[in-house]
Amino acid sequence: MLKNWNTAEIPSKEEIKSRLDKSRNRLYELQMKIKEHKLPVLVLFEGWGASGKGSTIGKVIKNIDPRFFKVATMSAPTEEELRKPFLYRYMKQIPESGKFTFLDSGWMDETVHNRLQDNLSDEDYDKRIDSIKRFERQLTDNGYLVVKFFMHIDREEQEKRIQKLLKEKDTKWRVSSFDKWQNEHYKKCYKVFDRYLNDTNLPTSPWYLIDSKDSKWAELQVLEILVSGIEVALQNSAHSVPILQNIFPLVKMPKLADVPLEGKELTDEEYKKELDELQDKLKDLHNRLYRKRVPVIITYEGWDAAGKGGNIKRITEALDPRGFEVHPIASPEPHEKARHYLWRFWTRLPKDGHIAIFDRTWYGRVMVERLEGFCSENDWKRAYNEMNEFEKELSDWGAIIIKFWVQIDKDTQLQRFTDRQNNPEKRWKITDEDWRNREKWDLYEEAIDEMLQKTSTTYAPWHILESVDKKYARIKALKIIIKELEKVLN
Amino acid sequence: MLKNWNTAEIPSKEEIKSRLDKSRNRLYELQMKIKEHKLPVLVLFEGWGASGKGSTIGKVIKNIDPRFFKVATMSAPTEEELRKPFLYRYMKQIPESGKFTFLDSGWMDETVHNRLQDNLSDEDYDKRIDSIKRFERQLTDNGYLVVKFFMHIDREEQEKRIQKLLKEKDTKWRVSSFDKWQNEHYKKCYKVFDRYLNDTNLPTSPWYLIDSKDSKWAELQVLEILVSGIEVALQNSAHSVPILQNIFPLVKMPKLADVPLEGKELTDEEYKKELDELQDKLKDLHNRLYRKRVPVIITYEGWDAAGKGGNIKRITEALDPRGFEVHPIASPEPHEKARHYLWRFWTRLPKDGHIAIFDRTWYGRVMVERLEGFCSENDWKRAYNEMNEFEKELSDWGAIIIKFWVQIDKDTQLQRFTDRQNNPEKRWKITDEDWRNREKWDLYEEAIDEMLQKTSTTYAPWHILESVDKKYARIKALKIIIKELEKVLN
Repeated sequence: MLKNWNTAEIPSKEEIKSRLDKSRNRLYELQMKIKEHKLPVLVLFEGWGASGKGSTIGKVIKNIDPRFFKVATMSAPTEEELRKPFLYRYMKQIPESGKFTFLDSGWMDETVHNRLQDNLSDEDYDKRIDSIKRFERQLTDNGYLVVKFFMHIDREEQEKRIQKLLKEKDTKWRVSSFDKWQNEHYKKCYKVFDRYLNDTNLPTSPWYLIDSKDSKWAELQVLEILVSGIEVALQNSAHSVPILQNIFPLVKMPKLADVPLEGKELTDEEYKKELDELQDKLKDLHNRLYRKRVPVIITYEGWDAAGKGGNIKRITEALDPRGFEVHPIASPEPHEKARHYLWRFWTRLPKDGHIAIFDRTWYGRVMVERLEGFCSENDWKRAYNEMNEFEKELSDWGAIIIKFWVQIDKDTQLQRFTDRQNNPEKRWKITDEDWRNREKWDLYEEAIDEMLQKTSTTYAPWHILESVDKKYARIKALKIIIKELEKVLN
Repeated sequence: MLKNWNTAEIPSKEEIKSRLDKSRNRLYELQMKIKEHKLPVLVLFEGWGASGKGSTIGKVIKNIDPRFFKVATMSAPTEEELRKPFLYRYMKQIPESGKFTFLDSGWMDETVHNRLQDNLSDEDYDKRIDSIKRFERQLTDNGYLVVKFFMHIDREEQEKRIQKLLKEKDTKWRVSSFDKWQNEHYKKCYKVFDRYLNDTNLPTSPWYLIDSKDSKWAELQVLEILVSGIEVALQNSAHSVPILQNIFPLVKMPKLADVPLEGKELTDEEYKKELDELQDKLKDLHNRLYRKRVPVIITYEGWDAAGKGGNIKRITEALDPRGFEVHPIASPEPHEKARHYLWRFWTRLPKDGHIAIFDRTWYGRVMVERLEGFCSENDWKRAYNEMNEFEKELSDWGAIIIKFWVQIDKDTQLQRFTDRQNNPEKRWKITDEDWRNREKWDLYEEAIDEMLQKTSTTYAPWHILESVDKKYARIKALKIIIKELEKVLN
C-alpha cells in the first residue's frame, strides 16, 4: 500500500484552515447522532515513531464531549497483559455503543514490533494476521465502525523530529528505543509496515494513510476521513453479512435425544470414594499447571436445575482459591450489552496458570438470545463461527478448554422444579422464568443440538454430563478435567 | 486456507437426500424473491481439474427457471479476448439484477494458470491480486451477491477421475492438458491455490471450500451455502460502504471559474492550416499505434452545446474507419441499468491497437446521476475511486487515456441554445432538458470541479478544451491527442 500510495499536494494554509473549521464543526454535530444511533466507533492510530499520533488524537478529541470518548495509549504489554491472549488488551478497549475509543497505536504496532525485533516466524506472522483479520471482521460484522489511520513520515523527517525531542529534557522521554531503532532501520521497517498494511486492508475496515509532514494537514486528513466514515456508518441500519463456512476440525456429537441417561448413576459409597481420589488428583494437577503457566477455561451450560452449581462446587473444592475464579453469567449489564457480545468473556479470561470456570457462557447467544429474539437471525447464525474463532484464539494461546453440557430429561427437571417450589429453603432457586423456559423445551433442544454439532471443535469439544444422578455427573466432570489436564501436563 | 481447512464428515445417504430436497426447494422459492428484490447473483466455481465444477453447476441450475440464469464456461481466453484487459471477459459476464450468472471457472483459474505455467512474476501476481480484490469489492459495494466456491479433491481422486475420463472416447476431450499437468504437479498447484485463496478471501466475498469427493455431498454443500448467501443478501436493503481514500497520483486541476476563456480563438486561416497539418499527423500516428497494438481511449464531457460533436468529428476525420469507434452515451438501456454502472463501458472497450471515443462517459455518475438523485450519495461518493480504479486497469493494460472537458461560459451557452431554437435545421439539437439542466448550472459546476480534482490522475488526466471558439478547441484537442500518442509511440 505505502509504496503505491501517492500523497496529495498540501493545500494552502487558508484552505486548510477553512476545511478544518468545517470538519471540526461537523464532528461536533455528529457526536450526538452517534449517541442516538448507538454507533460504537473505534479509531486506531498507527504509524512511524514521532509521526504525531498522540498530538493528532489530542486535537481530534477537542471536538468531542469528554463523556463520549476514551483514549488508550497502548505501549508495550505489561507483565500481566503478557499472560493473556494477544488480542485481550485490545478487545478490552473497544468502545460502548454511542461512544468513541481512540487507540494510540495498537495491534499493528505490536505485530510489526514483534516481527522486526523478536523474529516472529513467517508461520506465526500469518497466524497473527489471521487473528487480526478475524478480530476486525468480528467488530464490523457486529456493527462497529473501525477507522484505521497510518501516519506516515519519511526518514529525514523522522530523524529531525527525534533529534528535536531528544534535545529537550521535557520531551526526551517521548522517544522510545524502538523509535530510534526504526529510524536506523527505516527501509526494513518500511517493508514490514507496507506488507502489514496490505495484509490487513479489508473492504470493511480499510486503511487510511495520512501524510503527516505538516501537523495541521495531518489533522485535516484525519478529521475529514473520520467524518466521512461516521456519515457512511450512520446511513446504515442493521446489516446482514455472509455466514462463513466452518473451517475448524469438528468432533461429531450425538443429538441430545440419543444420549442415554438410564443407569448413569453411582451409589453414595462409590461416589464418596471416587470424589476423594479425583479431587486429590486435581489438586495436584492444579499446582502443576500453575507452575507450567497453562491457562484453563471450563464452561458449564445445561438445563435449568440440571445441577451445574453443585457440579462446579465439587471442582472448586479441589482448587487453590488463589488460582481460580468462578464467573456466574447472568443477563448482561448495560455496559456489557453496549459492546460486542464476547467482550464480557474476553475481559474475564484467566491469566496463564489460572483456571476460569464459567457458569453459563457465550453460548447464550445461540440459545436464549436466539430463541427470545434478543439478537437477529444473522447475529446468531454468524455466532457459531465467531465462537469457534474465539476459542481458536484461546487454544492457540495455549489454553485448555473444557465445555460441559449438563443433561437431564424433562421429567427430572419437573421433579426438581417441584421440589424447589415446595421447599422454602430452595424456593429462591426457582423463578417464573424457569417455568417459561421449560415450556420452550423442544425449541431449546433443537437450538442446543445445532450448537453441539457446530461448535464442538477438536480444540474445544463439548462433553455431555448425564446428570439425572448428580453424583454421576460430578465424577464424570472431574474425570474429564483430569484427563484433559494430564494430556497437556504429562 | 486449504491447509487449515477441515472437511466435515460426509453425512449418511439418507441425510444427504433429505437435506438436498430441502435446499433444492428453497432455491426454487428464492429465485422469485431474487427477482423481486432485484438482486444480482454471481456464482463462481473454481477448483481442481475434474473436481466436478461443470456437473455441479448442471445440478444447481435444475432448480432455477432458465430465464433467470446464464452459465458461462470460461476456458482459456480467445485471441480476441487477449486483446482486452484481463478483467474484461469476466466483467462482461456479470448478471443483471434479479438474475444469476454461474461461471465455470474464472479469474482464479486464469490467474493460477498464469502463475504456474506462464511465470507471472511476483510483482505482476501482486498487481493481479489487487485488480481482483478491487473487482470483487466493486461488485459487492454495488449490491452484487458474489459467492465463490473452490471444489477440492486430493491427488489420488483427481488421478482416478482423469484416468476414467480418458478411457472413454466421449469424455476424453474433457481432460485438458492443464488438468493433467495439475495432477503431475499437485503439490506445487496446492501451494499456489492455497495462497490465492488466502489472498482473496474478503469478508464481503469469502471463499467456500467444497469437499468434492462425493458428488451428491458436493452438490449439497454448494446448495446450502448458496441458499444461505441469498437469504442473507435478501435481508439487506441499500447498504453504504466506506469511502476509500484516493491512493493514485493526482494532477492538480484548476476550478472551472479560474479557466480563462478570453482570447482562446483562431482565425479561419490559422484553423484551416493547423487542422490539415494535425490531421495528417494523427493519421500517421493511428497507423503506428495499430501496428504497435496500443489501445486508445478518448473521452468527452462538457456543457450542453459546448461543441463536443464537432470536435469529435475533426478527430475521426483523420482516422481509418476500421480502427476506431465512437460511442455516443445516452441514458442507460434497461439491460445496462440492471448492471454495475461501469458495465456498459467495460463492454465497449476497444481492442488493442484501436481507438474508442466516448461522447459522454462513466463520469455521468458524478454529474447527472449525482444531481438528479439517480444514485445514492454513497454511490457517487464512492464512484471517484471506482473510476480511478477502472482507469488504472486500463492504463496497466497499456491504454492511452485522454479525457476532455469541453468548457464554455454560461452566456455562450445561452447564445447557442437561442441559435438552435431559432434555426429550424438545428432545432432537434435542443430539448427542454437542456434548458432544465442550464438552470442547475451552479450545482453542476460544483460537481464538475469536484470531479476534476478527484479523478485527474497522472495516468488518465483531464484536459480542458476552451470552446467559446470551437475552432480553438478542435485544434487543442488534436494537439493533445498527438502529444499523448507520440509520448508512447516514440
